[in-house]
Amino acid sequence: MDNTATNLTQLGQLAQAAETQLAQLSATQRNDALVQMAAALVNHQDIILDANKRDLANATDLKQSFVDRLTLTADRIEAMAEGMRQVAQLPDPIGKVDRMWKNEAGLMIGQQRVPLGVIGIIFEARPNVTADASALCFKSGNAVILRGGKEAIQTNIAVSGVLRAALNEISLDENAIQLVHDTSHETANEMMALTDYLDVLIPRGGQGLIQHVVQNATVPVIETGAGNCHIYVDEFAELKMATDITVNAKVQRPSVCNSAEKLLIHEAVAADYLPTIAKSLQDQGVQLRGDARAQALVPGMIAATDDDWDEEYNDLIMAVKVVDSEDEAIAHINAHNTKHSEAIITDNYQNGQNFLQRIDAACVYINASTRFTDGFEFGFGAEIGISTQKLHARGPMGLNELTSTKYIIYGDGQVRK
Amino acid sequence: MDNTATNLTQLGQLAQAAETQLAQLSATQRNDALVQMAAALVNHQDIILDANKRDLANATDLKQSFVDRLTLTADRIEAMAEGMRQVAQLPDPIGKVDRMWKNEAGLMIGQQRVPLGVIGIIFEARPNVTADASALCFKSGNAVILRGGKEAIQTNIAVSGVLRAALNEISLDENAIQLVHDTSHETANEMMALTDYLDVLIPRGGQGLIQHVVQNATVPVIETGAGNCHIYVDEFAELKMATDITVNAKVQRPSVCNSAEKLLIHEAVAADYLPTIAKSLQDQGVQLRGDARAQALVPGMIAATDDDWDEEYNDLIMAVKVVDSEDEAIAHINAHNTKHSEAIITDNYQNGQNFLQRIDAACVYINASTRFTDGFEFGFGAEIGISTQKLHARGPMGLNELTSTKYIIYGDGQVRK
Repeated sequence: MDNTATNLTQLGQLAQAAETQLAQLSATQRNDALVQMAAALVNHQDIILDANKRDLANATDLKQSFVDRLTLTADRIEAMAEGMRQVAQLPDPIGKVDRMWKNEAGLMIGQQRVPLGVIGIIFEARPNVTADASALCFKSGNAVILRGGKEAIQTNIAVSGVLRAALNEISLDENAIQLVHDTSHETANEMMALTDYLDVLIPRGGQGLIQHVVQNATVPVIETGAGNCHIYVDEFAELKMATDITVNAKVQRPSVCNSAEKLLIHEAVAADYLPTIAKSLQDQGVQLRGDARAQALVPGMIAATDDDWDEEYNDLIMAVKVVDSEDEAIAHINAHNTKHSEAIITDNYQNGQNFLQRIDAACVYINASTRFTDGFEFGFGAEIGISTQKLHARGPMGLNELTSTKYIIYGDGQVRK
Repeated sequence: MDNTATNLTQLGQLAQAAETQLAQLSATQRNDALVQMAAALVNHQDIILDANKRDLANATDLKQSFVDRLTLTADRIEAMAEGMRQVAQLPDPIGKVDRMWKNEAGLMIGQQRVPLGVIGIIFEARPNVTADASALCFKSGNAVILRGGKEAIQTNIAVSGVLRAALNEISLDENAIQLVHDTSHETANEMMALTDYLDVLIPRGGQGLIQHVVQNATVPVIETGAGNCHIYVDEFAELKMATDITVNAKVQRPSVCNSAEKLLIHEAVAADYLPTIAKSLQDQGVQLRGDARAQALVPGMIAATDDDWDEEYNDLIMAVKVVDSEDEAIAHINAHNTKHSEAIITDNYQNGQNFLQRIDAACVYINASTRFTDGFEFGFGAEIGISTQKLHARGPMGLNELTSTKYIIYGDGQVRK
């Protein structure tokens, strides 16, 4: 179906050549191509489902949840296509001049949004990422090199092949979207050092994958998705609201990075309130682990160990700590969080402002669930991940975070004195 | 004079602790501290000059230009101090909310400027960088870990010691500014992998240093300062302007990264104009190296080799190429440039717009000298370097580029549906 490059240097060269074309396409051309690619996914779903069956046949000794994520159906392929169509309809992130001014010498200096260039995505065995990441990169004018998990390789080859063929059919460079067919660790490590061709590398997956990439890549990385979010119930909290928010943040979708893993409660309200909220959480199937003071207030609560304060459970587990003051809560959070999302529940103005100011995290909330840290909830219309680093992008990353800038400068003969 | 940490992990921990304090200081507190540090440099210049003499005594087999940069005098120390005072007077980059909106759920979401955190600076034997980088990092609320060249170690210890003592005297945490005393390559490499403590690493120096850091660091790096800038004289150029700009871009300060290294000339004007501009450049002592067509037009011009097109001379040398079209000029530039600064000289509207749109570089000029790519000339009031990468910051980096953001979110009980 396609002419696939066989080594990373060649992939990189082809991606850069494709990027030169892609960066010059109009928004309409890019959006039309996305709609064509979406149609191709649906039209060629037999190829994709066949390939997926082969992956599933090899997946005999994998966990059921893993197999679920790997499995495609006609409905899931339609959902991938619909995702691409939605991305086509989002505002164009490219070309906008964020600011323009005249300098002392009379130059007009404008800072314009441009694509990042070539983006590498390293991800686990979730075939939907292939379509999803391709759509977001293409929309923002970036070429993409995808490297997915080996368990989904046949599916990924089929999906990327269909997308590439669709580009080819409308006379666009298919190498704007490329898949690394060799799923060995050696090739993944080589990709992490491909500084001549990759402008950025975004790992998508669990903590093991992300930390491996951060520790090994020399290509600039955007670190995403590590969560250990806290809810701090202040002494001046409205307690009904505290319960609603904590239960939502913990149980609405415990497997994701913006769910709450830790509950801190001011000692002034702990005695009366902790048993109540503990019951609400336990009623939802949450296992609670407490420090000594929390344990004393909730009979049968098991003990939290030192490791608990740093752990991301991604499960119906929550550790609980009683604190003497907001200062202690803030110090504890800044010492143990992953800089993702933190919330205070309070009706005290100064305590809320203080929390916003002093907590070091991508998203800091007063009186709301940490589950809102999400590109769609923020109103970006899309999300490639949630950055927990401080360089380039922090928090939910939409299309705008997949762009860079360049300065365009209009002179009339100026020379430097 | 100070309590200096002895290993990088300890330096990192102390820097993070200092950063927690520093991030909470008001702009006035940070500016007052900068003024105090500037005064300390002047008041303790004897300590600094003594240390500098010891470095110079060891510098017996170094090049004169290197020794010049290493040498401090009372005037140069006053210049360092004045630089710190000027940074104190710049607008504060911290705390500003760039945008704020209400999402569907009614959350008020604001994106606020915050410090990056802990910045590592690896630099060569230029003692002024110690004061300069400390001032910019401190002003932007960042702790800094400095690692300078071994030839300047005594001077750097003295300068950083004076700055730290000044912070200590006004009861601020001296560990906001730290110097790595061990100048071994092993320690530098260890610093490049200090991902638990450094939020970003900025190398400042020659290409050897920068490429070593880019190839080895797992800490996020901002790549700065590689230049191979082009001037393209279009067939519709005003030729007097082309000469003024090219001479300025080449000779005004040939040792820096925004000076022009390459001259491309459209063949329609080459025969008449190349001899004229060649003479203007040669009169300024510039050695010209040409492709075959350029050589044919300028008797005695030496031949450019393939390597010339990729080389940054940082010297009074310029390679010249005759091109058939603007397309050829753009393709040549995009293939050989370092993505720094490129200029077209033209009076044709469409050719100018086309060049701005299609050249991939941090700064693209119509009818102006590439020498304007500079934080001061852009009006930023300061510069930590010129980024040639696309992630985080691109082009001249002022105080704003030393910041990150966080989302501050005001709710009234929202939970995710």
